[in-house]
Amino acid sequence: MSLDVEVYRRQGFGARLGVSGALGLLIVDFVNGFADPARFGGGNIVAAIERSAAALSEARRRHWPIVHTRIVFADDGCDANVFCAKAPTLLGLTESIPASAIVPELSPLPGELVVRKTAPSAFFETGLRSWLTQRKVQTLLVAGATTSGCVRASVVDAMSCGFRPVVLRDCVGDRLLAPHEASLFDMDQKYADVRPLDEVLKDLPG
Amino acid sequence: MSLDVEVYRRQGFGARLGVSGALGLLIVDFVNGFADPARFGGGNIVAAIERSAAALSEARRRHWPIVHTRIVFADDGCDANVFCAKAPTLLGLTESIPASAIVPELSPLPGELVVRKTAPSAFFETGLRSWLTQRKVQTLLVAGATTSGCVRASVVDAMSCGFRPVVLRDCVGDRLLAPHEASLFDMDQKYADVRPLDEVLKDLPG
Amino acid sequence: MSLDVEVYRRQGFGARLGVSGALGLLIVDFVNGFADPARFGGGNIVAAIERSAAALSEARRRHWPIVHTRIVFADDGCDANVFCAKAPTLLGLTESIPASAIVPELSPLPGELVVRKTAPSAFFETGLRSWLTQRKVQTLLVAGATTSGCVRASVVDAMSCGFRPVVLRDCVGDRLLAPHEASLFDMDQKYADVRPLDEVLKDLPG
Amino acid sequence: MSLDVEVYRRQGFGARLGVSGALGLLIVDFVNGFADPARFGGGNIVAAIERSAAALSEARRRHWPIVHTRIVFADDGCDANVFCAKAPTLLGLTESIPASAIVPELSPLPGELVVRKTAPSAFFETGLRSWLTQRKVQTLLVAGATTSGCVRASVVDAMSCGFRPVVLRDCVGDRLLAPHEASLFDMDQKYADVRPLDEVLKDLPG
Repeated sequence: MSLDVEVYRRQGFGARLGVSGALGLLIVDFVNGFADPARFGGGNIVAAIERSAAALSEARRRHWPIVHTRIVFADDGCDANVFCAKAPTLLGLTESIPASAIVPELSPLPGELVVRKTAPSAFFETGLRSWLTQRKVQTLLVAGATTSGCVRASVVDAMSCGFRPVVLRDCVGDRLLAPHEASLFDMDQKYADVRPLDEVLKDLPG
Repeated sequence: MSLDVEVYRRQGFGARLGVSGALGLLIVDFVNGFADPARFGGGNIVAAIERSAAALSEARRRHWPIVHTRIVFADDGCDANVFCAKAPTLLGLTESIPASAIVPELSPLPGELVVRKTAPSAFFETGLRSWLTQRKVQTLLVAGATTSGCVRASVVDAMSCGFRPVVLRDCVGDRLLAPHEASLFDMDQKYADVRPLDEVLKDLPG
Repeated sequence: MSLDVEVYRRQGFGARLGVSGALGLLIVDFVNGFADPARFGGGNIVAAIERSAAALSEARRRHWPIVHTRIVFADDGCDANVFCAKAPTLLGLTESIPASAIVPELSPLPGELVVRKTAPSAFFETGLRSWLTQRKVQTLLVAGATTSGCVRASVVDAMSCGFRPVVLRDCVGDRLLAPHEASLFDMDQKYADVRPLDEVLKDLPG
Repeated sequence: MSLDVEVYRRQGFGARLGVSGALGLLIVDFVNGFADPARFGGGNIVAAIERSAAALSEARRRHWPIVHTRIVFADDGCDANVFCAKAPTLLGLTESIPASAIVPELSPLPGELVVRKTAPSAFFETGLRSWLTQRKVQTLLVAGATTSGCVRASVVDAMSCGFRPVVLRDCVGDRLLAPHEASLFDMDQKYADVRPLDEVLKDLPG
């Protein structure tokens, strides 16, 4: 990858954003169905969930605004969309089935926003953007699955909206490692800082 | 890649969208600065521009709605954003420098929409979405650069907005082939059909 | 009002949009709490609900896409926003209380989209826009409450998004007649056609 | 109006937002064409421009982020939309004609954002929202024209986006006083604080 990085560096990509202003934590689609290799899971997703529990615990201790997302389609399928046309199995993620519930390790507490979505980005036609604005979030730490899917789409939107995204490298996972690594590379060069949780926390005041 | 495809197939991804309803053509950021390896170009971008000229010519012949995008920042830098914080060289793409102008081969004609943008997606805070709605576009053919950058971000948004994206495989390019191929794979599995121009045209009524 | 209309006419406002393309029906916030003068209701809202039942019945007969909206805030108040800061009583509209439920006369059927929202416009950070796009809606008939509030905000957005709004004059209501009439006037001049249901239906093919 | 206010008060509307966090100033569509009664002007618009010059001067002295909007359609009319279908004269507001230029009294300085728009709201498909987020604006003072048109649409969106709008009562104007007053009333009850400039400034630290 070193030759690749050199091309990006020469063209001016890959600067560091750093951490500034109020922080928030976004956890994308860590629901049972994405923890299960027989449904939408696999790869390093389970490991990423474990590390995200540490991120969530730290965010709670520091009273950061916290957001969880779930993919949820209507019971009668009336909100089926083009995403479902590419992946019809997504339509099975209805409100009350276990596969659409957030994994027990990351179960939301009162005061944490739970965003229901039907598109890759956590920002697309959801209340996330105005919620972060009202909480004055400027730097958004991002965990979740999949790295190359809903995490990446959410990170691109977070940046476009004016938030500074930090992808927690060990808190995001994908069903396969090749797209995971390719998206970490792209995000680190163009949209976000990509760093392990411990390193990010080390730089923060206690 | 075949093992990878198998995982996606088993989980329900990779269905075909097909071509239906009115078609439109979106050409993303084919400006001089992205055709020039000394600025933001390289890889297979110049070849993709050549093929896009064929796509554009066909779109004009068939009277499809046509959109071109350019990245343009204000002369005084007052609209600098987080994207520029990751890639400060982007700020140099101001309205009147040659690097921000659409390449001569694809020069827009009257009636074609030219979208100025400051974020990866052609849809982000631009007039593209309502413009396509008013023209009843349902299937959006996509050309442009870079595959892993502004093309991919635009394709994700096109799908989320309810348009059916078809990525013209030979009409999109990137500064390096690895991110180009990785994003083609992701898009074909989850967001769009990825097909060469000739194959798409062959299926259309004359 | 005739002198006023003359000013608008001279400046070029008030042209007719007409009805074209596929139609859809949007019913804004006709929930129990807005039918009840002791909560958010009053004025001509109950009469508008009665007429909207006729509109809904006709829409179902003609198989138009149908959307209902409800204002719903989270049980724990975690999505309180600036709208609630202006009107704190809105926060009481939680998912399961009767006041937030759609009135029995207009109860949604399977296949009709129910949009939960926390802002005036039915389009703001909701899935409505992409849903209408996918159903190819071009002309959007609008009923609901209040005329000067969520109806008007939704109509402005519908027009901006590229849909042609028709406000069904006898199917929208407000807690007071003065803001009702003022908003009908503004919408008819600048954003929508404002016409009674019967007149709109009369012009349609059977 | 006092009986009306009582209805709103009893239902819980009309609370004060106050001024908090960083301030910004938004000046909506104060261009020559809206200062001219022969085009889109009239009523109290010229008086509102005079007072807005005082607001702008104060905003510059205090180094607030400042935004101006203009309605601008493409020279070839390729971005004509439903707004133009209601008011075809708007299409004449092209980039280089004097009618679309900001009035000399309010001429933008470098560093102030100029938003081109083709819809009523300053937020609709423009870069305004992310720009305000990046500048940490929380309270948005609003001047401009027309009160019942683009000012009101922008205020509703500002509130929905999570900004606290303050409409500067003497810095907004409309071609007729009836819609001006009706929209001030609606905004004050539901979307914004409506206060004269002097009163707002008096409450701020020097």
